[in-house]
Order: sequence, then C-alpha cells, then structure tokens
Amino acid sequence: MPVQASNFKAEISTLLGNKDYAGLKAKLVPWLPADAAPILSELPVEQLAVLFRGCSKELGAAVFTYLEHGAKHKLLKVLTQPQAAALLNELPADDRTTFLNELPLDIAMQLLGLLTPEERKIAQDLLAYPEHSVGRMMTLDYVAVRSDWTVRECLDFIRTHGYDRETLNMIFVTDAGGHLLDDIRVRRFLLAEPDTKVSALMDGNYATLAPTDDREKALGVFRRYDRVALPVTGPDHKLIGIVTADDMLDVASEEATEDIQKLGGSEALDEPYTTIALTKMVKKRASWLVVLFLGEMLTATAMSYFEDELAKAIVLSLFIPLVISSGGNAGSQAATLVIRALALGEFKLRDWWRIMRRELAAGFMLGLILGAIGFLRIVIWSRFSHIYDPSPLKVATTVGAALVGIVLWGSLMGSMLPLILKRLGFDPATSSAPFVATLVDVTGLIIYFSVALLVML
Amino acid sequence: MPVQASNFKAEISTLLGNKDYAGLKAKLVPWLPADAAPILSELPVEQLAVLFRGCSKELGAAVFTYLEHGAKHKLLKVLTQPQAAALLNELPADDRTTFLNELPLDIAMQLLGLLTPEERKIAQDLLAYPEHSVGRMMTLDYVAVRSDWTVRECLDFIRTHGYDRETLNMIFVTDAGGHLLDDIRVRRFLLAEPDTKVSALMDGNYATLAPTDDREKALGVFRRYDRVALPVTGPDHKLIGIVTADDMLDVASEEATEDIQKLGGSEALDEPYTTIALTKMVKKRASWLVVLFLGEMLTATAMSYFEDELAKAIVLSLFIPLVISSGGNAGSQAATLVIRALALGEFKLRDWWRIMRRELAAGFMLGLILGAIGFLRIVIWSRFSHIYDPSPLKVATTVGAALVGIVLWGSLMGSMLPLILKRLGFDPATSSAPFVATLVDVTGLIIYFSVALLVML
Repeated sequence: MPVQASNFKAEISTLLGNKDYAGLKAKLVPWLPADAAPILSELPVEQLAVLFRGCSKELGAAVFTYLEHGAKHKLLKVLTQPQAAALLNELPADDRTTFLNELPLDIAMQLLGLLTPEERKIAQDLLAYPEHSVGRMMTLDYVAVRSDWTVRECLDFIRTHGYDRETLNMIFVTDAGGHLLDDIRVRRFLLAEPDTKVSALMDGNYATLAPTDDREKALGVFRRYDRVALPVTGPDHKLIGIVTADDMLDVASEEATEDIQKLGGSEALDEPYTTIALTKMVKKRASWLVVLFLGEMLTATAMSYFEDELAKAIVLSLFIPLVISSGGNAGSQAATLVIRALALGEFKLRDWWRIMRRELAAGFMLGLILGAIGFLRIVIWSRFSHIYDPSPLKVATTVGAALVGIVLWGSLMGSMLPLILKRLGFDPATSSAPFVATLVDVTGLIIYFSVALLVML
Repeated sequence: MPVQASNFKAEISTLLGNKDYAGLKAKLVPWLPADAAPILSELPVEQLAVLFRGCSKELGAAVFTYLEHGAKHKLLKVLTQPQAAALLNELPADDRTTFLNELPLDIAMQLLGLLTPEERKIAQDLLAYPEHSVGRMMTLDYVAVRSDWTVRECLDFIRTHGYDRETLNMIFVTDAGGHLLDDIRVRRFLLAEPDTKVSALMDGNYATLAPTDDREKALGVFRRYDRVALPVTGPDHKLIGIVTADDMLDVASEEATEDIQKLGGSEALDEPYTTIALTKMVKKRASWLVVLFLGEMLTATAMSYFEDELAKAIVLSLFIPLVISSGGNAGSQAATLVIRALALGEFKLRDWWRIMRRELAAGFMLGLILGAIGFLRIVIWSRFSHIYDPSPLKVATTVGAALVGIVLWGSLMGSMLPLILKRLGFDPATSSAPFVATLVDVTGLIIYFSVALLVML
C-alpha cells in the first residue's frame, strides 16, 4: 500500500468519472479489500455503483464484503436488478447470510428473490438456522473427494471444478451418500505421489460441528483442536458445510464484548459503542441501572430498622460506605473470575463444591487482611480525633469483624451466584460486578449492624 | 472417537505394558491428539515414556504439544538425553517456544542445549522477542518460492522439501534476498495450469506483521483481513516467519480473560482459576482489594466533615448506600463500554470529546430516570412512615437531585478515566468497575451532602 489514502480516494474518484475500468483494476488490485473498502465507502453511491458495474464480479464481491453496512444497502438500491442479482449471487454464502440477516425482513426477502434458485435455496437454508449458530457461519465452498480416488484425480477435480472462494486448506473425504469419512490437510495432497489413493492418506481422526451448535461452543472446539477449518455435519453425519478459523476470530471478539458489557452491568449493546444511537444505548443501560437501583433501595429499608442504633452512634454511619463496598469489591472479583472460568469451560456446575471451598478460604484470608487494616486505621486515627469516643476500640472491633464477615460473604455470593444463574438456565455473565455489589450491599449492612449490636450497644 | 475414555486409558496402559507399538499406533491414530493427550497425561510418567520411546517422532511431537505442562516436564526428565533431544527437535518451533518460556530459566537452558545447532538458533531467536509479541508465536515452517518459478516447479519444491508441519494454506513469494513480494493462497496454485509462472498469480496485495508487534495488535490485523495465516517480516522486509489464525484464537481468549479479570477488579491471574495456587490467587486479588479499601477510606473522611449535619438529619444516612452505589453502577457501565470500545479500536484517544459529549447526554438521562424513581419512592413512602418527618419533600428533593448529579458524574468519570489511563501509558482495563465505583463513592458523598446542605439545612 504505497499510496496515501487521500490520494487513493481522489484517484479512484477520477478513474470512476472517466469510467477507466482498466485503470481502476490496476489501482485496486494491490490494495487489500479490507483496506480499500472503508475508503470506497466514503464515495458517493452513484460513483461507487460505476465501480461495481464495470469491474469483474470477483473484485466486486471481494470489495462488497468489506463495505460498511449502510454503503452496501445504498449500493444495492442504485444498481439495476440484474447487476444487484449478479453481485449477490457472487458473494460467499456466509458473508451473504450475515448481510441479509442485518436487513429488515422485507428487504431481505426482495433480495432473496434476486438470487438464482440454487443460491436462493442455499441462502434460505442458512438463514433457517438460529442466530449465533454454526449454521449461520457456514460456507459451502469446500472440496469433498472420495476415498478411492487417487491424488491426481483429486487435484484434477479441484482444478476443473474451480472452487474459487474460501480456503482450500482441508480436503474432505465423503462416501457416495455424502457422509463425512475424514478430513485431510491439503499439504498431505501436495506432498503425496500423484498415484497415491486418498484412502492411504486418511487417518480417521477428525472433529466436527453441528449446524445447530452455538457459536460459542464452536469456538471451544476450534481452540481445542487448533484447526483452521472444521467440517459441519447434519444429524445423519452428512457433510453440509465448513467453518473457517478467521470467522471464529470475529466470534471470539463479539462473545468477549457481550460478556464484558454484561459484566459491566448493562445489557450487551450488540452494536459498536461509537455508532449506536444514544437513546438505544440509554435504554440498554437504564434497564439494568433501574433494576440495580430498586435492589439497592433495600439498603434504605435495612438501615431504617437500625435507625435507633444509628442515632446512638453516628460514628457507625461513617464506615457504611467503606464496609459495604469492600464486600461488593470482593464479590465482583469472585464473580468475574468464576464467570470467565465457566465461559472457558475450566470447570462444570457439578464442581460447585470445589469452587465454594476455594472461595471460603480466599474470602476468609482477604477478609482478615482488610479487617486488620480497618481495625488499625481506626485505632491509630482515634489518637488524633475524638469522633470515635467514647470507645474507639469498640468501633475498631466492629468495623474489623464486620469486614471479615462481609468480605467472606461477598466472595461466597460472587462465586456461587453465576453457578446458580447457570443452573437456572440464565447467562452467568448476568451476575455482573454491580449486580453482585448490590446484593452484597444489602446483606452487608445487616451483617455490619448485627456485629455493631453485639459489640457496641 | 468410538471408544470410551476410561477404556481407552486402560487399553493404552496394557499396550504400553506389552510394548506393543503397532497396537499403540493403531489405537492412537484415530484419536485427535487434543483428545488423547489429557487422558495420556494421567498415565504414570514411566508408562508415558514407553510411548514416546516406541512411537514415531511425528506422533510423539503431536501428542506432546497437547500434554499438560506438568506431564511434559516430567516426561522430559525420564527420557534419556538423546530421546528428549529427538522430541524437542521435532516440535514445531512456536509450540517449543511456548513450552520453554513456561520453564524455569535453568531448565530451559539445559533443554536448549539438547537441540541441534540449527534448531537452537531458531529457539533462541524466538525466545529473544518480548513476551506476548508476534515473534514468540511465529512458526518457521512456511513455504517461500520465487516469482520466476512455474507452478510445477513450486509443487515439486514443496514435495521434495517435505514441509511437514503447520499449514500450507499460503505460499509466500520472496526475491533472492528473502524479501517478501507477495502471499498467494495455495488454492491458486492448485487451480493454475502447471506451466503458469508464479508472477502471473501475484497480485501484490498482502498484509504483514512485525515480530515485535504486540499480539493484541496482531489480533486486530487478523480480524481485519480475514486471513488464516499472515507473514512476519523483519525491519528490512525480509520474511522471517508466519503466524496462523488457530494460534490467534488462543490469543483472543487469553486477552479477553486478562481484560475481564482486570475489569472485575483483580490482577490478571495468568493461570486457570481452577488450578492456580490459593495463596497466589489471594495475593493477586488482595493487592487490588487493599488499594480499593484505602481509597474507600476517604468516604469515612468525607463523611466525618458532615457529621454535624448527619446528626441533625439521621434520615440522610439511610440513603447513602443507594445514592453512592447508583453513581458507581453508572460509572462501571460507562467504563466497561469505553474500555471494550478502545480494545476493539472503535475510536482513538483524540475522539475523547465525542465520548464525553455522549456520556454527558447519557449520564444526564440516566440520572433523571433514577432521580425520578428515588424522588417518587420517598414521597410515596412518606405517607406510610414518619422517618422522613418533618419535611419528606425536602428529603425526596435532596435524594432526587443528588442522584441526577451523581449518575451524571459517575458516567463522566467512568468514561474519561480509561482514556486518561491510556494517555498516561497504563492499561485502560485497570479502571475496573470496582475502581470507578470507589472513586465515585467518595465524590458522590460530597455531592450528596452538598445538595443536602443546599436543600435541607
């Protein structure tokens, strides 16, 4: 990419004005579609349409895939119907599925109507799989050969059938009925003598995905087996498509974003933070904030029961934020660690007792540390201030002991809540840091005042 | 994988006892190394050593890569020196780098000594790159051809040089000096006529990584270009290795884990939650908890300034947890969204003003919603309770108005803090939900009491 982006845009614009298709091709080919597309997206849509009318279908499809969603949509509107049809028919099946899925249903249906009967069937089949399933990410451009062919026959087959998209890293072996028998890395074909039978290259070990698998599950399979492509088989073990590792990278990032946003205490935005409409974002954030607010109201209720005690020892109120937030922080930590470990499949629900024992131990140690600091802080401070009078040691003991209990309790709640949510069929990431903190705040107050009643009053 | 895992283990154990290498091979080949290795890891290390002594180097290397770290280490200790050397020399360079990196330095050095001079040079070069850099993940088993060769010459070259590991999805074109000219998908070789020149297949568009690039940056490049493998070039544009997409999946998951753990308010564990030593985990969690605790102590300081006001209106203390936690929750949301958007490269630091405007608007709306609920709650409750006497409307106004200010303030702090941290060269994920909540707690109390002074006292 030796050219500057601004020059590139101006140059393309001039070439488009002159309809200089040869010049356009020469200019575009050394650019990676992913780099060229954002710049092309900025061109007026009528100019952009010239490009898609004049250039090869392959180049058009490659660039279209990377255009911004709005530009894609507008472009299809200004193209004539046959032009739009040609473009859509040329798109890789998985990219087309993603694009159609983001459109309003009526427009998606109109576009489906433009496809050839064969491509329409493919698109409809893929769109029929649930959102976020492996079926939606499949591509059908794979190579399947038979076990009794020779390597030479396979290579001839590949050459004459001109599979011209997606990866050819894996060759799949099927029987006459289309059932998957094995996957073979293409390098084994390249390294083998041409007369070798495919069966001699087979080792019978392969991993598969089901089209209904959740994409998060697929991610785990990819990570486990270090594959660049995995076959997808139907219930009858027929090979129906493949999924490639580069698409899984997007999945990994989207799934992490979802989890992170939930952990931060809002609904997953499902759109980039910078481009989501303000009202839409406020709605997604407000729902959880209101739930947390209503939950946190219980703190006022809990405290009103201890109003008389509070009036007797105002000093107690000074440490309320400190004490309850420590419980919340310990809970956030535990919840986050457990949620991530669950997402990575590090343990199963039935291991809850092991987790609980760990958190009992960890929570107790953490509580002792914070309790000791809190105790010492008050004892030392009381030398210089009289707000702890008449009994600074009692205040220190109350705060210290309450901290041990609350941090322990927070760690326990934080670690067990995700497991309980998962057991009930909810997403464990729902037990976000703020959610756990809110629960621990209410119970933490009760622990704090109960300790105070025992020690001080 | 038709066999049950328990049978598999017993059968392998028997075959190992009988040193039946042919039987072992027949049993192991249909198993994917990733599935077999965890079961094999459970075998006594002396038995496991029999397997590595008797089976082919390829099978040994494939299984070794997936063994648990402890099993790897123990296995190398019971193998004779030449056996260990053979195994280490056979390992893919990137897997070997990862393994050596996890060992104590002295043992890593001993093992380096076992390598052939050629492999030792490779391993030392890779280990010299910083941790979490692209250099550490590189593999050197790529195919580089010249632009003036024909396809037939390339395929012969591949066949005779028997590149027997990693992917062959991409063929790289270099000049006589080893400088990268292009990357070509292997399918283009397969589809081309044997007499085609490589130069006719070149399009000059390719993306590259530098060995010193951070792996998080590499992840962005992979996501952007949808590649299954990317070339790594040195400062002189010489091709020095490749990185494959399957390895990036592990990176994606590790980077997300790190961010999530930091967002939850602890240091990144760098080890699975289920296997990390308890004391190590407590240490990682305690450091942040203590920092947060010390910060939160300022709440007690802040409140002690308002002790007289508190004594006059105990009812104010009832709403302290509610009011400050709402600010903390709003801040957690904003921080998490901004941190994730930063990690995904959705915006740059210089866009801070756009983000600030968004959060000013969102925070104000969210504050109004919570403020209204809080106001109504107190007004309605005051009909049934006399704790708000003598002036429930004043209490309601104080809480409602403070909520607007605190939620707005929390959203602002939460969104700007990650940007400030990044600007100062820290990881933005450090401004975790608990961290933001703590900061907002202290300032929130001041806002709350200031509003109370204005409205009530």
